[in-house]
Amino acid sequence: MLTHKHILGMSDLSPEEITLILDTAESFAEVNQRRIKKLPTLRGRTIVNLFFEPSTRTRTSFEIAAKRLSADAINFSASASATVKGETLRDTAKTLAAMSCDLVVVRHRYAGAPAILAEEMDCSIVNGGDGSHEHPTQALLDLYTMRRALGRLQGLRVGIVGDVCHSRVAGSLTRALTAVGATPVLIGPATLMPARPAELGAEVSYDLDSVLPTLDVAYMLRVQFERAAQMPFPSNREYSALWGLNARRAAALPQGAIVMHPGPMNRGVEIAADVADSARSVILDQVESGVAVRMAVMYLLLGGGDSGTAV
Amino acid sequence: MLTHKHILGMSDLSPEEITLILDTAESFAEVNQRRIKKLPTLRGRTIVNLFFEPSTRTRTSFEIAAKRLSADAINFSASASATVKGETLRDTAKTLAAMSCDLVVVRHRYAGAPAILAEEMDCSIVNGGDGSHEHPTQALLDLYTMRRALGRLQGLRVGIVGDVCHSRVAGSLTRALTAVGATPVLIGPATLMPARPAELGAEVSYDLDSVLPTLDVAYMLRVQFERAAQMPFPSNREYSALWGLNARRAAALPQGAIVMHPGPMNRGVEIAADVADSARSVILDQVESGVAVRMAVMYLLLGGGDSGTAV
Amino acid sequence: MLTHKHILGMSDLSPEEITLILDTAESFAEVNQRRIKKLPTLRGRTIVNLFFEPSTRTRTSFEIAAKRLSADAINFSASASATVKGETLRDTAKTLAAMSCDLVVVRHRYAGAPAILAEEMDCSIVNGGDGSHEHPTQALLDLYTMRRALGRLQGLRVGIVGDVCHSRVAGSLTRALTAVGATPVLIGPATLMPARPAELGAEVSYDLDSVLPTLDVAYMLRVQFERAAQMPFPSNREYSALWGLNARRAAALPQGAIVMHPGPMNRGVEIAADVADSARSVILDQVESGVAVRMAVMYLLLGGGDSGTAV
Repeated sequence: MLTHKHILGMSDLSPEEITLILDTAESFAEVNQRRIKKLPTLRGRTIVNLFFEPSTRTRTSFEIAAKRLSADAINFSASASATVKGETLRDTAKTLAAMSCDLVVVRHRYAGAPAILAEEMDCSIVNGGDGSHEHPTQALLDLYTMRRALGRLQGLRVGIVGDVCHSRVAGSLTRALTAVGATPVLIGPATLMPARPAELGAEVSYDLDSVLPTLDVAYMLRVQFERAAQMPFPSNREYSALWGLNARRAAALPQGAIVMHPGPMNRGVEIAADVADSARSVILDQVESGVAVRMAVMYLLLGGGDSGTAV
Repeated sequence: MLTHKHILGMSDLSPEEITLILDTAESFAEVNQRRIKKLPTLRGRTIVNLFFEPSTRTRTSFEIAAKRLSADAINFSASASATVKGETLRDTAKTLAAMSCDLVVVRHRYAGAPAILAEEMDCSIVNGGDGSHEHPTQALLDLYTMRRALGRLQGLRVGIVGDVCHSRVAGSLTRALTAVGATPVLIGPATLMPARPAELGAEVSYDLDSVLPTLDVAYMLRVQFERAAQMPFPSNREYSALWGLNARRAAALPQGAIVMHPGPMNRGVEIAADVADSARSVILDQVESGVAVRMAVMYLLLGGGDSGTAV
Repeated sequence: MLTHKHILGMSDLSPEEITLILDTAESFAEVNQRRIKKLPTLRGRTIVNLFFEPSTRTRTSFEIAAKRLSADAINFSASASATVKGETLRDTAKTLAAMSCDLVVVRHRYAGAPAILAEEMDCSIVNGGDGSHEHPTQALLDLYTMRRALGRLQGLRVGIVGDVCHSRVAGSLTRALTAVGATPVLIGPATLMPARPAELGAEVSYDLDSVLPTLDVAYMLRVQFERAAQMPFPSNREYSALWGLNARRAAALPQGAIVMHPGPMNRGVEIAADVADSARSVILDQVESGVAVRMAVMYLLLGGGDSGTAV
């Protein structure tokens, strides 16, 4: 079982708990390959997807995970929500808690919103992405994908390329990698780097080309056009030239190195289409792993393990 | 079983039927406290949430209720609906009926819309709120909450405070209270009172402070900012000073009196935050009761009782 | 079983396969009349409704069909989708495929979008309407309804009235009718006729009144106000006078002829209210048949037949 009842960020999880989640996800990944992708594990439990930001893949991934475990899955999106009527986040949380929800997945544009919910609710909270802060299940599925592709996590050098300081994916992944003994290498313009990378246990590089031959993983962050106004580079072409992973750069990676992206991709910007579709790319494995890892998180948080094995 | 196949308003229900619903809800409330919150009662029945107005708590409450009874729950919201293409409400009703739905919960901004649906459809209709008219499941969950908190309904004095004449919650609750032998006391400015309160079996007061010491329940209506243009008071501050339940006023309630609100709350307007969170407040019990009461309504309307006990 | 794993258009289906689908739908139609409308057939299979255009009846029909077969049904609508973030249709397809979906129903404003998805995904694709191109399950439910009402398909003369050349319903239905030995008669202004109707196996008429007495079915197409800017007629009144089915015209149909419409109707434009509600009208039968036909399509595409009978 897990120590905490919530997963608000990677710091909630010890290295042993991370390994437990990844190992549990292995068995669920096998279920997802079956014709009948359904387990009775969480029958009669209520799981709410509370999304205050638009999302497709993350919400769908959690919803599929919940349904394959036979939970009742409820979507609660901001556009149709009481927040329109001025209800506070705390009251929304208390309302859902009063309806006897067992687990709430929350995505919100403000860092810390899931932590506020966790204070107010008896049920488990999973952070599905909060502002520029954390997106822990993304980091967990990334670890799972790396471990499956490369056979290990310890000692890996993982280059995280792009707008590192505003990316919740980069934040969670950096913490996750150091927890399992891998080395995050943060790569991008100095203006988009965190203030004290060494305190994060990360290396930093401002030169993508020079560092590529040393990496086991090239993890390309998405350019977030939603925040285009604050973009510190003049154009997509400029970004692509400096920080995009094209075929030439991918060829500079060591043999066996893999290419990752959290999706959705901007093909031709942070990653070239041919690289995204190349044999090095495990981008679709990440999506596939996402369902299994989220099943594992739900299973472990809701004490599904009480009655023995998961599958 | 219930006499009518629909619940369009409180006048569809006799005092005995109200008691039957509340008693049935007791057993479902117990189910909602279990780890496995699931009954096979309505397996294979199709329940549609047909919402033409945005709502979170009501839709979610009905959806959770349907799923815990194992019904197939379908959300059909206005934004994605054929009404965009000019289909009439009657045709929407007939379309859903032709798909063999068993029960439709409808929320609509026009009073009487659920009654129109009921004319066109063979299936059961539950009014989930229509304009300023009725919101019967809210009144039922309010009765349930009062009965649980105070041990009885007969003889209670329930102050309903605010924009009484535009509130469907106030309308349904007034009818519900008189049906069970309690006394609604309508409190607010004269401009927001119904024309002939005595015909409703209600008392009226224009002075909140003087009436508070006589109440068993202070039921605070929501200020509906959506209709701000028609608001007959100059500001929130003004409203709060005259009609808001603050700590000083709450202290004027008799010992044992409770505070209620249909949600979502505007903290600091119709109710002060400390009162909403005080020991007198049963606001979250209302939310909790809502799921159980809606399960009871679905169960009784769909004849789940044919095969014996509910749970 | 079906030859193709997808249903992108009517040309994917042989006459024998069309008959198989209609026959299979018969047994599901019977299930939909039961009190318990639920079969375990597709338990553990994941069906996604991927709708890039607003729709009520079609999405709801597919969702109900999936749930009555016990599949996990996921709604994925454009407004909340990654397409907002610039993801391509191909990447959306690959993402859903990586989540191990079994069947995706897609509606898109561009003709050919479902075919693109089919190229990228291992799972089955059902075209739920693409631009002016195809809407095959609508044509199948129309055939089903005609066969049930008239006892046969071969030799029927089916007048399809209105904006034929922009209607995906007309396109799919024309192909479906010729496949089963019926005769489509395309009726409307010359500007809204396809270029070479004879190649489609269709007759053409520019005079509704003269052709009505020869028809077994009058199939009225919807005037699509969404595309009002391109409408080649000056007003609804004008349209109604020339191409609308009013009581006088309906009386000119042979005895036993039926009236159909794919919905949602514009009462008073392409069809008069009294005709829509008359004994000749099978418009609600079409809606009812839709659920059964979609259950049949899902069942046959997902190989539900492996284990024997459907029901």
